[in-house]
Amino acid sequence: MIFELYYWPGIQGRGEFIRLALEEAAVEYVDIARMPKRGGMGIPAMMSFMEDSATERSMFTPPFLKHGEALIGQTANILLYLGSRLRLAPKDEAGKLWAHQLQLTIADLITEVHDTHHPIATNLYYEDQKAAAVKRAGDFKKYRIPKFLDYFEQVLNANTRRGRYMVGGRLSYVDLSIFQVVEGLRYAFPRTMAKLEQNYPGLIAVHDDVAIRPRIAAYLQSERRIDFNEDGIFRHYPELDK
Amino acid sequence: MIFELYYWPGIQGRGEFIRLALEEAAVEYVDIARMPKRGGMGIPAMMSFMEDSATERSMFTPPFLKHGEALIGQTANILLYLGSRLRLAPKDEAGKLWAHQLQLTIADLITEVHDTHHPIATNLYYEDQKAAAVKRAGDFKKYRIPKFLDYFEQVLNANTRRGRYMVGGRLSYVDLSIFQVVEGLRYAFPRTMAKLEQNYPGLIAVHDDVAIRPRIAAYLQSERRIDFNEDGIFRHYPELDK
Repeated sequence: MIFELYYWPGIQGRGEFIRLALEEAAVEYVDIARMPKRGGMGIPAMMSFMEDSATERSMFTPPFLKHGEALIGQTANILLYLGSRLRLAPKDEAGKLWAHQLQLTIADLITEVHDTHHPIATNLYYEDQKAAAVKRAGDFKKYRIPKFLDYFEQVLNANTRRGRYMVGGRLSYVDLSIFQVVEGLRYAFPRTMAKLEQNYPGLIAVHDDVAIRPRIAAYLQSERRIDFNEDGIFRHYPELDK
Repeated sequence: MIFELYYWPGIQGRGEFIRLALEEAAVEYVDIARMPKRGGMGIPAMMSFMEDSATERSMFTPPFLKHGEALIGQTANILLYLGSRLRLAPKDEAGKLWAHQLQLTIADLITEVHDTHHPIATNLYYEDQKAAAVKRAGDFKKYRIPKFLDYFEQVLNANTRRGRYMVGGRLSYVDLSIFQVVEGLRYAFPRTMAKLEQNYPGLIAVHDDVAIRPRIAAYLQSERRIDFNEDGIFRHYPELDK
């Protein structure tokens, strides 16, 4: 059964956490909103799940995933669904909930990353909230990045299983997401990360291990991997990284 | 097996979504951080799960729940765990994920509520970010409350099962959380809500149905229910509700 991913075309955004899982598992999937409208796909196909009040279970916002009869929204919830099916999460309930908990904490971090450039309103341009953004980004770099990364580094170090994985003794979607977090923070805040990275040798190693996995490496080289840009969640505005 | 809830004493906050589920299910639970230190409880007991790097699975932030060997963090994740055990969620996987998805969207709303009074930094006092808070709250009231409540009202109306529930044909933790969202928004933004509520007859009915459930009604009258206050997530600052 093909997986259908629905997410904004043109940005990595929250959809990227799903793409990385689908790519690592080498399953067949279609990135619907990036496909042509004339094939019944594209953005209109995505919007139909969001705006159509006739749908019993409508989606609040992308990303969401369709898999046969299943239609699932919220990034971490999608990964919860995929984790067991793609062998990217522990099988036992405790392990499953633990991986999900870490993913939800990553989701919180991602929301804070978004708010560094949009602290006042998503509806306003960055330029119209730049002064507040400078302040929020300042706090984020000084306190929030260390708070989150300290935590994830501690979780990694406290994992007693062999191997260098966030959860248990094998790769999970949490490792893939940590890769994406490191990539994104490096893109958005290169000066900050250059200083901070030495404090997180474990997380950097998780990142590096993911980057050279054959399927991920191939994906990153492909046209399916969208470049970071200033429409996404991780944005590079030099004035926010001073 | 007793449930141990760990959350900041003195505020409803995110812990309240868990308390409502435990109260409705009438299970035995201890609100650890509100208990005396000398019994080995209180805030130190809570902090020991967060700061102790010797713990294999440490918690990023409260609330978290201990239940026998299980230790679970992230509000929505805790409700996912409790849902099946307390009969407060559908049993089938699709229903379970759907309830969880709605709860995660409520969690997103709660984060935005928090940021109306702390748009720049949790580390700063409200007074030091009041100007930005007025702007963010303005956008929140005009665009974000309607966006979220329109969605939840639509979800409710699209539920084809009998009864007036957010998910399926019986009460779930999502209904309890909608109750809390309505209560909180009324507390924080009474003028705004007085105008908006007429647009959400379904959600208000869900709220009212929950409020008169015997166990919830008894809980709300008890000392276990902490009053809303200006240390919590829902805060009433008149200047943010003009």
